[in-house]
Amino acid sequence: MASHRGHPLGMSDDPLFHPLLEGDRRALARAITLVESTRADHRSRATALLEALRGHGRQALRIGLSGTPGVGKSTFIEAFGMMLIGAGKRVAVLAVDPSSARTGGSILGDKTRMDLLSREPAAFIRPSPAANQLGGVARRSREAVALCEAAGFDIVLIETVGVGQSETMVARIADLFVLLLAPAGGDELQGVKRGIMEIADLILVNKADGELRATATRTVADYAGALRLLRKRPRDPEGFPKALPVSALESAGLDRAWSEMSDLVNWRRDNGHWDATRAEQAAHWFEEEVRSGLLARLDTPEARARMARLAADVASGERAALAAAREMLESLGSA
Amino acid sequence: MASHRGHPLGMSDDPLFHPLLEGDRRALARAITLVESTRADHRSRATALLEALRGHGRQALRIGLSGTPGVGKSTFIEAFGMMLIGAGKRVAVLAVDPSSARTGGSILGDKTRMDLLSREPAAFIRPSPAANQLGGVARRSREAVALCEAAGFDIVLIETVGVGQSETMVARIADLFVLLLAPAGGDELQGVKRGIMEIADLILVNKADGELRATATRTVADYAGALRLLRKRPRDPEGFPKALPVSALESAGLDRAWSEMSDLVNWRRDNGHWDATRAEQAAHWFEEEVRSGLLARLDTPEARARMARLAADVASGERAALAAAREMLESLGSA
Repeated sequence: MASHRGHPLGMSDDPLFHPLLEGDRRALARAITLVESTRADHRSRATALLEALRGHGRQALRIGLSGTPGVGKSTFIEAFGMMLIGAGKRVAVLAVDPSSARTGGSILGDKTRMDLLSREPAAFIRPSPAANQLGGVARRSREAVALCEAAGFDIVLIETVGVGQSETMVARIADLFVLLLAPAGGDELQGVKRGIMEIADLILVNKADGELRATATRTVADYAGALRLLRKRPRDPEGFPKALPVSALESAGLDRAWSEMSDLVNWRRDNGHWDATRAEQAAHWFEEEVRSGLLARLDTPEARARMARLAADVASGERAALAAAREMLESLGSA
Repeated sequence: MASHRGHPLGMSDDPLFHPLLEGDRRALARAITLVESTRADHRSRATALLEALRGHGRQALRIGLSGTPGVGKSTFIEAFGMMLIGAGKRVAVLAVDPSSARTGGSILGDKTRMDLLSREPAAFIRPSPAANQLGGVARRSREAVALCEAAGFDIVLIETVGVGQSETMVARIADLFVLLLAPAGGDELQGVKRGIMEIADLILVNKADGELRATATRTVADYAGALRLLRKRPRDPEGFPKALPVSALESAGLDRAWSEMSDLVNWRRDNGHWDATRAEQAAHWFEEEVRSGLLARLDTPEARARMARLAADVASGERAALAAAREMLESLGSA
């Protein structure tokens, strides 16, 4: 998956720099801790490290992965990861959890549920950070992915817990997006957030084994039908997005899923979509950084308190939205 | 649909103030021209007028309407509008077209296609503004809706052309959202942007007449099935969102559609969702105004040129996103 860009590799005195480029997992873990930190000195060090690492010329395949609770996501990641490692790949698994209210809710919070994978030298597993380190989930995730690429991982699986906007954000970091669903019959087929269908490249119906095999087959057909109702995207070849059955438990269907992913990625590479998407994602990242830099003025305790007070006044009808906004902007010196 | 809030009606010297409150359509049209203008003096006058009009105590039912091209949207609006007027309602129709590249693409650009409705004294039809007046589509649309409410219209139909983010924006202004689709068979059922399913309260399959009647019935069943695959939203009663057949041409099914809309709205009123949604929309409007006020610093010719140059450098890999963002923020005095 390596590809070389014109930019030369930077220089750095950071003790993490060389070990990270050599694929040292402890150095990678420490570097991710830096990008997760909100401390100003950590932030500066992380930025310098990321800039020095530019030009390493490595590109991982970044796979976004979302799924409803109980779908067997950790079993799937374990089985899929082991299959990839068996094919000679190095696999990093990152968790994205934008919900600060959750306490250890992410499956990856419990590494013991991926017993085999976590013992593999070719695997790197990173649970989602503690709630108090939140803030800038998109930036942190993007930077963690960039660090995994620098460390030479071939595949980066970005797992998200499927709340709110997290899938859209992950899709903006990933090269392809996989949605993992459970078999369900008729009216039970609930729980898919509508926007997620928009971004899925592959829907995998897990637990296509034992008693659930027939139900899984029907579920695949239902979702295949639903996907046909939706508009074809310009960066998809004919037949995508697809729905397929898998069994993480029996490691069945995983090679088919991987071969579909590879076909999709190869088609996108051959048609220039891979580079175009990466370029757009980088430009988007830049624009997001500028916007969040401007909006950071709302991110002080005083500004937050004033925003909350004014928003409540507007919601209750006591103040007009326009007048309240003018007052807020004046308090920020931006009216 | 009238409801009174605590806020008293303001005072204004603006010659449009009293005619607008009395429902004068020419005054309404002129006031909308003011909110569409980007001239600073027009903007001040529009803001003052909107603030003076607060507290009129009128609430229209705001219906967002989207549909694929060729679905018969203008025929539907004409038939549906005439039915509502027959029931004693005053009906305003606004077009939202966020795409500046379109030249007269909105159906409402051609009033003659709503011949009956445009001659009704109880109707007000506003085509989408010319492309050079664009910028701040969300604000302009929201303000135009507020003016229609002040002018005492019972129903405000907000038509959107179905490109990109416009539906999400319209859903943030509307009380309910209707998606109009054409009958289609099997694999032809394309063209529904996935995110739109997320926000639709009612899917109406038009042209359920003549030769297409059977196809329309099947299409309704297909979409009803697809809707069942999606998660129930907390502000929906059992059975919503729904898919129904209509024939704008024969004015068939329109009373059923209206009765479903009324049921939905009444349920939401009875359960507190109407007021809660309106309050959230107002608070959201305030927050959007603050954010767009901060981001307005990117909206000068110099800033736009610099952003474009830096984004191109980032996309080509010549510059790092973080470093480019820092340079941009420094140039804005916000680093």
